[in-house]
This record gives sequence, C-alpha cells and structure tokens, in this order.
Amino acid sequence: MIRAGIINVTGYVGAELARLLAEHPEVEIASVTGRSQAGKRLAEVFPHLWSVDLPVEEELSDEVDVVLSALPHAAAAATLAPHIAAGTPVIDCSADFRLHDVSSYEQWYGEHPEPDLLPGATYGLPELHRDAIRESRLVAVPGCYPTAAILGLAPLAASGWLRSAIVDAKSGVSGAGRALKQTSHFSEVSANFSAYGLGGHRHQPEMAQELGELGERDEIPITFVPHLIPMVRGILATCYAELSGAELPSNPEDAREVLVERYESFYEDHPFVQVMPNPPSTKETMGSNACLLYPNVDVVTGQVSVVSCIDNLMKGAAGGAVQCLNLMQGFDERAGLSSIGLYP
Amino acid sequence: MIRAGIINVTGYVGAELARLLAEHPEVEIASVTGRSQAGKRLAEVFPHLWSVDLPVEEELSDEVDVVLSALPHAAAAATLAPHIAAGTPVIDCSADFRLHDVSSYEQWYGEHPEPDLLPGATYGLPELHRDAIRESRLVAVPGCYPTAAILGLAPLAASGWLRSAIVDAKSGVSGAGRALKQTSHFSEVSANFSAYGLGGHRHQPEMAQELGELGERDEIPITFVPHLIPMVRGILATCYAELSGAELPSNPEDAREVLVERYESFYEDHPFVQVMPNPPSTKETMGSNACLLYPNVDVVTGQVSVVSCIDNLMKGAAGGAVQCLNLMQGFDERAGLSSIGLYP
Amino acid sequence: MIRAGIINVTGYVGAELARLLAEHPEVEIASVTGRSQAGKRLAEVFPHLWSVDLPVEEELSDEVDVVLSALPHAAAAATLAPHIAAGTPVIDCSADFRLHDVSSYEQWYGEHPEPDLLPGATYGLPELHRDAIRESRLVAVPGCYPTAAILGLAPLAASGWLRSAIVDAKSGVSGAGRALKQTSHFSEVSANFSAYGLGGHRHQPEMAQELGELGERDEIPITFVPHLIPMVRGILATCYAELSGAELPSNPEDAREVLVERYESFYEDHPFVQVMPNPPSTKETMGSNACLLYPNVDVVTGQVSVVSCIDNLMKGAAGGAVQCLNLMQGFDERAGLSSIGLYP
Amino acid sequence: MIRAGIINVTGYVGAELARLLAEHPEVEIASVTGRSQAGKRLAEVFPHLWSVDLPVEEELSDEVDVVLSALPHAAAAATLAPHIAAGTPVIDCSADFRLHDVSSYEQWYGEHPEPDLLPGATYGLPELHRDAIRESRLVAVPGCYPTAAILGLAPLAASGWLRSAIVDAKSGVSGAGRALKQTSHFSEVSANFSAYGLGGHRHQPEMAQELGELGERDEIPITFVPHLIPMVRGILATCYAELSGAELPSNPEDAREVLVERYESFYEDHPFVQVMPNPPSTKETMGSNACLLYPNVDVVTGQVSVVSCIDNLMKGAAGGAVQCLNLMQGFDERAGLSSIGLYP
Repeated sequence: MIRAGIINVTGYVGAELARLLAEHPEVEIASVTGRSQAGKRLAEVFPHLWSVDLPVEEELSDEVDVVLSALPHAAAAATLAPHIAAGTPVIDCSADFRLHDVSSYEQWYGEHPEPDLLPGATYGLPELHRDAIRESRLVAVPGCYPTAAILGLAPLAASGWLRSAIVDAKSGVSGAGRALKQTSHFSEVSANFSAYGLGGHRHQPEMAQELGELGERDEIPITFVPHLIPMVRGILATCYAELSGAELPSNPEDAREVLVERYESFYEDHPFVQVMPNPPSTKETMGSNACLLYPNVDVVTGQVSVVSCIDNLMKGAAGGAVQCLNLMQGFDERAGLSSIGLYP
Repeated sequence: MIRAGIINVTGYVGAELARLLAEHPEVEIASVTGRSQAGKRLAEVFPHLWSVDLPVEEELSDEVDVVLSALPHAAAAATLAPHIAAGTPVIDCSADFRLHDVSSYEQWYGEHPEPDLLPGATYGLPELHRDAIRESRLVAVPGCYPTAAILGLAPLAASGWLRSAIVDAKSGVSGAGRALKQTSHFSEVSANFSAYGLGGHRHQPEMAQELGELGERDEIPITFVPHLIPMVRGILATCYAELSGAELPSNPEDAREVLVERYESFYEDHPFVQVMPNPPSTKETMGSNACLLYPNVDVVTGQVSVVSCIDNLMKGAAGGAVQCLNLMQGFDERAGLSSIGLYP
Repeated sequence: MIRAGIINVTGYVGAELARLLAEHPEVEIASVTGRSQAGKRLAEVFPHLWSVDLPVEEELSDEVDVVLSALPHAAAAATLAPHIAAGTPVIDCSADFRLHDVSSYEQWYGEHPEPDLLPGATYGLPELHRDAIRESRLVAVPGCYPTAAILGLAPLAASGWLRSAIVDAKSGVSGAGRALKQTSHFSEVSANFSAYGLGGHRHQPEMAQELGELGERDEIPITFVPHLIPMVRGILATCYAELSGAELPSNPEDAREVLVERYESFYEDHPFVQVMPNPPSTKETMGSNACLLYPNVDVVTGQVSVVSCIDNLMKGAAGGAVQCLNLMQGFDERAGLSSIGLYP
Repeated sequence: MIRAGIINVTGYVGAELARLLAEHPEVEIASVTGRSQAGKRLAEVFPHLWSVDLPVEEELSDEVDVVLSALPHAAAAATLAPHIAAGTPVIDCSADFRLHDVSSYEQWYGEHPEPDLLPGATYGLPELHRDAIRESRLVAVPGCYPTAAILGLAPLAASGWLRSAIVDAKSGVSGAGRALKQTSHFSEVSANFSAYGLGGHRHQPEMAQELGELGERDEIPITFVPHLIPMVRGILATCYAELSGAELPSNPEDAREVLVERYESFYEDHPFVQVMPNPPSTKETMGSNACLLYPNVDVVTGQVSVVSCIDNLMKGAAGGAVQCLNLMQGFDERAGLSSIGLYP
C-alpha cells in the first residue's frame, strides 16, 4: 500500500479522487487538504464520503508517497513546487503543467508561477504518452475537453491525415466546478442548453499542441466550441475532421470501414478506449474511466466525424489521474478503476 | 372569430396547437380529432387542457374555416386531400408538402400519397416566404431542425456567401413525439447526451432545398448531425459555415461586426427573429415563438459559426403554424403568440 | 391601461411579473427597479425579455397607478411604506404583510420595520379573501408553499373538520430564488432529492393562521416538511389530514365522494382552482395560474389526503399577484393569466 | 470464485446485477438469460457493459453455484421452482417470495404459481434477518420502497413504540423498470412531479408485515403514498410515525436525541445503514449500497419523522441481492459493494 495525499479535496475533482483512492486496492489515503474547510471531517463536507474517516487539513500532514492535486491553476504550481523539489511524485489536475509553451499558457491563464518546472512535466494522457508517464515524476492530467477531443482525433492526426478540425463539444455542468456562479445555478441551467466560450476557450491550445505533435505538423487549426448540457457528468465531443487528401474510399460505407480499422488498431492496447459499433452516449461512461468512440462518414456529404464520450470527472480528471498513478507506481493500469458505467 | 379544426390533437404538436388556439384572440376551436382517443374529452387526454372543454372526435365534425394538421407524414397528405379539394385553407405540420422534389421525399419517407398536390404547397417559413404564405391555401410548416438551421444560415445563403455548412444540432426529447420508444424512455435519456441519425436524417433535404434556393445555387452541401439533450423543449443549432470567398475582414472582431449587420438587416422586419448581443440559450425561447441568433467568428481559426435557438414545439412546429395562420387570415402576424420565453 | 411599477425586477418573481404585465391587456409597465442592475436594460439582465424595452432603474421613476414588489422581507416593508403612505395600491410578494401577529413574524424573520402597517394589509389569497382584496390597498401575496397547502386543506378547515395536518410538500428549485447558494448549485441539486427545513420553516405560521381562521379554532397543528425536487418550477403538496370526527362514511370510496363534493362546491366560483378526476402533476400547471387538487381516502387505512399542485412562480407568487391586481382594479379576475400549463 | 447465473439480465435490475457481479472479487458470471434478447451479446443490449463479454441466452446454460433472478413476479416463481428443487441457492428480486401470507400476495399480484415454496423463503433484509439469510437457500430481496420505509421505521417498531405511520415516499423513474409506458416517457416525466398509486400500492403489505412482526403487533397501519421524482435513481421516504405513548421527552431537541441514540444502537453492526448528522439526499447513495437515515422531531408540533434514502436499484434491489449473496456464501458482507455514492 502506498500513502497518497490529496490537495484540495473540497472540489468535485478532489472528492472524486477521494472516492477512487478510498477503494483503490493498492493505495491508502494518508492526508487530504482543503483550506476553506480545514478542521472539518471529510464527511461533513461531502456526506457521500461518510464511510471515509479523515480530517480535512490545512497542509498535507503526513509523509506521503505520492501527491495528487486538485487545486486550480496557478495555485497548483505554487503549492506543488516544494513537493516536486523534494522528489515526491506529483499528479496535477490543473492546467499548470499541460502546455509546453509558457507564452501559450500565459495568454489564457496569466503569469506562470513556476515556468522552470515545465520541461520536467509529462502530458498525462496514457494513450499517447504511456511510457513517458511511467518514467515521470510530474504528470499533468489533461483537461476534460482535450481528453475527449484528442482521443477522438488522435488516430487521424497520427496517420498524418488531419488537416483541421471543428470540435463541437458538450459537457455536463460539473465541469464548471463547485464554486457558485450564475451559470451553474440550477434554475438557469436546468432544462436549458447553451453554447459558451465563443470568444475562445483555454482548452483549445492543449488540443492543438497534442494533435500537432502527433501529426508532426506545425499547426493543425482546431475550432473548439463548448456547450453546456443540463446534466451533471459527461462530455460528448462531435469532432468534424477535414482530411488532407484522398486517404479514404469515396463510398461512405467503405470509408467508414477504413476509419474503424484505423481507430481499433490505434487503441488496441489501451484498456479504457473502445471503438463502439453504434454511437455511444455519455451515460454509458458515467462513473467509469472509459472513453467510447464512434468514427463516421456522412452519407450525403462525405464529411468525416468522430463522436467521443467520457465522464468529465473520471477519464477527464480524477480517473485519468488514477490511471497515471497506476502507471507511475507500476500497478495494473486498471487498478481501482472501472470500465463499466453506472447505467441507467 | 374564425373556426379552426385540429387534426390529430393527441400528440405534442396537436396539444400545443390546442393550447395556442384556445387563447388566440381571433380563433375559436371548432373541432379536434384523434382516432385512438376519439370519444374522450380533450382534458382526459391532456389534463393541462382542463379548461378547454372539447370532445376528441374521429373526424372533423363541424364546418371549419381552416384546418391545422398534426398528423404524421403520409397520413397527413391522405387525410388532408379532401379538405384541400374543398378549398379549405390547410396548414400541415408534417413533411408531406415541404419538399418540392418528389424523389427526394420518397428517398426519406416512402411513397407520396398525393404528389399532385406538391406544386400548390408553400414552404411555411414566414421569414423567407411571407408573401407567398399570405396567398397560399396549403402551407407546409417546416421541420423543427430545418427551422433553426435555415434561419441560422439564411442571411449567408441569401448573400451568396455560403459554400457549405455543418449543422451540429441539439434537440430536447419532445421532438421525438409522444409515441413510446426506448430512445424516449426517461431512464435512458435523462442525464444522458447522444448523437443520432449519423447515417443520415430526413430533415437534411429541407435545409439543402431552402438554402440552395436562397443562394441560387444548384446545391449547398449541408452536413447535419442531430443530438438529443436531456430536456423536453428546445433546439440549439450550431451552424459552421464555409464561405465562398473574401467576404469578411480578416480580423475576427471586424468580421463578426459585418456578420451581425448582415443578420440584423436580413431580419429587420421579422418580429420573431432576433440577433442577440450574447449567445442565446434554449430556455430563453421556451413556450415562445422566438428564434434567437448569434453569429460569430472564431478568434483562433476565423471559422464562421451561428448559434440558433428555438422552442421546437413552438417556432419549430405549432407556433410556426399559428404564425402562418395569422398571415393567411390577414391577422396581426403575432396574434396569439408570445415572444417572451418562460424563464427560468 | 393602468401604469404599473415593479420593484426588484431582477429576481425570478420580478421577472415573472414583467413577463405577465408585458402581455397584460389592461396594464402598461411604467417602470422597473433593481438596484444591483440599475443602469442596464431589462433585456441585458433577462435575455428572454428581449422584446420588453425598459431600463432597470434605482427607484420607480414614473408616476405609477399601482406598485408590485418582489423585494425580500424587511426590505419590502421599508421600501413600500412611502408608497402606502401616498395611497398608491401596493401588492407585495414578500412575507412582510402576511402574518397578523407581529410576534410570529419576528420569530421567523426578525424585527418588522413597519409593524403599524400590518392591520391595513389583506392576505392575498382570492379563494379565501376575494372581497377584502377588492377593497384593499395593501395586499400580501401568500408564500408559495402556503398557497398550495391552504388551498389543499381549506375546504376541510372551513367545514370545521380539520383537527391537524401533515403537509409533505415538494418544490422546484426556483422557489429558492436567483441568489447563489450551494443548495441551488446545479451539480448538487440535479438528479437529487432532499428534505430540508426539518428544524422548522417560516411558511408554517401562514398555514396555521389561515387554516385556523377558517376553522374558527385557536390552533390547528400543522407539521410542514418541505423537499427539493430536481426541476425548476412547480410545487406538489401532499396534505395528510386528521379529521375531528365521523364526518366521512367509513367506506373509502364513499368517503372520497363526499370529499370531492365538498371540494367542488367550495371552489365552484373560483376560476383557477380545479378538482381533478385523477391525481394531478406539477407540469400540468407550468406557467399557468392554476391550482389543481385531488382529495383522496386511503383504501387500506382510511387516511384522508389531498394532493395540491401549483407553479410556485405563478399561482405561488407572480400569478397570484396579478390575480390580486385584477381584483383590486376591477378587471376580469383572469386578465393576463392563463389556466393552461405549458405541457410537456 | 463461485459461478453465478443471472436470469433476465435485460431489465435495469438485471443489468445492475451484471455490473456488480462482473467486478465482484469472489464471483464469476457464468451465464445470463433474457428471452427477448437471446442470441445477442450482453454489450449489444447494454453498451455500458461493453467490457463484459457474455452472450444472452434463453436458459441458464452452465452449471451455476447460485441463481439471481430479476424476473417479474409470477414469472419468477415459475422459472425458479426447478432451481429451488435442485437445491441451488436462489436470490429472487421479485415479489414472489416476500409475503408470508398467500392471500395478501394474491390480493395485489394475482394467483401465486408456487405457494408451497413460501414457507422456505427468507425476507432478504440483512438488517432484520441476517442470521436467517445466512442459513437460507431461497431469499426474497425486498421491494425498493419497503427497503427504505422498513429501515426508516424498524428501530421504532422493534422498540414497541410504533402505533401507525404515514410513509410519503418519492422515487426516481428507474423504479418503474425498462418497459415502455406513458408514465416513463421522458417528455411526460421530466421537470414534472406527481403522486401515484393513491388507490393503494402493492408495496404496502411488505411494510406492514415486517414492521408488524418487529413490533409483535397484529397490525401497524401504514399509509403509503408513492411519488415520482424527475430523476433516474434514488428513493427518499419521509416516514411520519405516531408513537404509542410517552416514550420521548416533550422537548423536541431532547426527543430527537433519544431517537438518534435508538437508531444508532439498532444499526450499530450494520455496515450499510448510517444515521446522519444532517438530512441526507438521495444522490449521496447513488450507485452505493448505503441507506442513510435522519430521525427528527418537529419543533412546532412534536411530530416524529424519519428521512430514509437509498439507491432503488442498489440497496433497493441489486445491491441488496448481492449483500444477501455475500451472507449466504460466507463472504464479507460488503464484498463487491461500495458504501460511497457517485457524487455529484
């Protein structure tokens, strides 16, 4: 059993980390922090964790073997720097260590508190960087939207086929966190659907970075438009791809067959990504670490599209973090994670 | 007061017609039909209509001045033919009289029972065909998705700018009607989001027809992907447009300004379509006949997109029908219709 | 046309008043206030009111014929006092003028800013006090829960039958208002159901006051337990009544028949209250001013219960206010109000 | 590893059994049946079970060590009789073996196909019958509503305090199963709340039987009124208890303290039932096997009430079944079951 510490357990990603690690066969939660609630028991803050008997502390109080952070950006890098310096393995769910390019970070998030740490960080998407994650001591868990979009487009990018893409993504409200805002107020959001971030969204550069690297291109233009679904968990990204040439047969059915083969072979060794025979729905992934994909070719126009579904708090955050933890510690990649959604 | 008859009042569009006409200042509901429920009072079938005291009949029993039909396709044309022959003004909410091209109809809906009636029909979108609707005695109310998509793209098509488009549309579940299906079962759909119709959807040809006509082009390729939102009413279509040339300034903000002017001028005289200063949400239209639009230009990629919101049962069906009725009868176009949504 | 002013238009009750009065045939909205948003257009605050062209002001700027207030308690009495002193008819949606007994008010709401105004106020439930409302210049619109509970139990109380009651009430989240709180946060409330106010709820004394007066008893003990439903609008109160003696036949079916007659006769002249042949659901009242009732007798235990449904923002607040306005001004009691819900 | 067979895997309870047993550390799923879908793979029927590779069969094909049935009543007894005769341990989620009294069964469910099997059956609520379940070879998993209500009232009944009760229960829609009905249609149920079963509900006799036995009384009258919540999973029962005498201090706070002690001591050794310091909500139990309780005393009237929350598909069906399986097989009572809900 390794001893894990969770920093900022009091948001949704933190609570999900606590849920997963409390039942992880190889991990013991040694300490959890959350400044605004320090002094309470965890179960006072989150009654669903009534059976997890831990105090919420100001600082990680125990020696821990690994640190998982659910702090927001900027606070994350500042708080994690000493742990990194001490050589403790760190898994960070914020944006602080995702982008290689500091100027890109600063355009969306403001000044970076610890830019010198960037070169040592690994982008924590096991399906693209599994070996690097195994060797890394600082892993940046991808954003929820990028997880869905990159997994949806990676096989095309890696084949050199992807010229540009439109990612029309839809997310449950938990992606906006636990803080109070008008746009997370029940009466505003319930039975309602909206687009947002039309002036640009900070998750776009991650998609461009990872797909560009895969495609060995300077740049793959990605138009990203997020939408808010009146439900709690789940992301569905519909990714419209413009391909660079005559990669696919002109008949839509044949083209789809080629695509499916491409996707199945790309994800062959990855236990949480599955190419589905029918279009998936978000609830099929609820509470699980799965990413379900459906590549398609429009019968009228020949447009290539890929539907990608995840649970934003799981594969898109806490589940992805635990998957990285498993790799870093040499555990079974699936330990403590389910591939079965809570359905219905 | 004119006397209206509603055929097939027992589905959601029929019930919505009854709600609207029961409170319409110029209309009296003379008769309503619905074969499976014939013999009951309307309020037994729909308790929310408890104050509307009418029997559900097998056939329209009274002489009526106008017929509104909420029958499904094929049944509609067959049932309406005698009324049309008798010269009664007819407003049909099915697909039977929307497509000019019989072969296109037959590809999606099967054999047309009354193809000879097609040339006499008018596509009932007042924002494109107001004068023709005023003169028409057979009006085909557009599909809900086409209403949102066409209104979202019409200013671009009419300017000759539109080369192709991807319509990523999201609809509440009431669009699938009142019949029982697994895909309308609460436990399957609630807290869930999915794409469907990926093999092609019958609403695509309407979009292609109307936008092609406006653009005076043989064809504008439209990729249409519908999605199901876990809520009852509302459609939001995110329409990604590829323009044919250098119509817009290269700076995204300037380009957006040109777009907004284009849209505002196109809809200047139309009381139910509004260009919004911020991205609209579906609930802002709930129960109203409004269509709210937000044209935009992506700051990263320059991609042009338009968000379009309606209530699918209102502007997308029964509300659109009443707007046509008002025009055909020479009433105020807004009579019996609200532009204010039921929010929150 | 009379000129109405709405104070504090920026909450849900205020917005609903604006929606109703904007389409009221006898009323013009002369002025609306809302301090935190003063200086904006109403449509900036509430995009669904895009067609209502009004500025939000700090103070009522125009001479108005009637004032409707959606301020919270305490603020209401303080702000309305000058209007009352000036003789302007006032309709208040807060708790400030509902309770006759200042000490009861102060137990739940704190010090009353204008206790001298209480004797001049009328409890604005037209089904109990229609004549008094017609004559009143200061009407206190009942709370949403009391509206549902009192209408559900009034025929029993007025008959002298009611000895005590348990009101198990369930409300949509809009009843908690537009302010941000953890208990109105979408991710906390969605797909969730809870009881609250178990330590006592401030709406209980209204029920006790009105039912006690009707029953000409010193006191009718009312146990009131509210619950939160994961939806926006609607209250359903299940009212379990203990009767004082052998009022009903022992056979449950016969007993139910007696009850139904009692209820139908009590509400005979009231256009918005309807005794239903089957148990009603909240959505049948959505957006309407209806209250739907279903009295019942348990076949196993003989327990008397009454189900009562309203839209909390309509009959439970803004709709009730407009109904009082109509009475005070001598309009048709139903003017500007619908009895048909927005279903589905 | 024991080999389990699931009969009728194609409903929600069957699917939940498959989810739980697929990840149970001591169980292997040997065979699953479902006549209407026989011949398909399980993942075709339920895509969320994509990683569980099993065919759906007509009959249990393998020798199995234990049978779990999710068949409806009548079909269950008929189908299970041969397995029972063969001595295979059987856990049945239907009503067929819950009621000791055949005439009570026949009043609600029709003729019993195997009345001779009733004396050998154990009511599968471990918190009341743990030792009997350990010894039993035929266990009847309680209904979802009875699970919540009985656990909510058992400490009062067992103390001899309970004279009668009103159980006002609210359930998510999944309790109505996967079959298509108007009352499970998304557009009818979403954003809606209703009471049903007002003419009597078949879950009432279970409550009366178990609470009566505990209380050693001939009869404890239970008024049971179920309601439908617009969400998928979860039951909250608000149980109003009339006590037989002066068991509690007259001061509500002191009375509540006595109650809490009574409840905590009653459930001391039961890992899934927890007395909560604050009123629980259903989502705190989602996907878990927990039952969360909150006994209370009304400060105004002294009325005793108890809030009880479960996940109806878990503790109220499949989770309860697995808990019984664990006891019957001598496993840890908690094996394969979580006490942590999927929140938010």
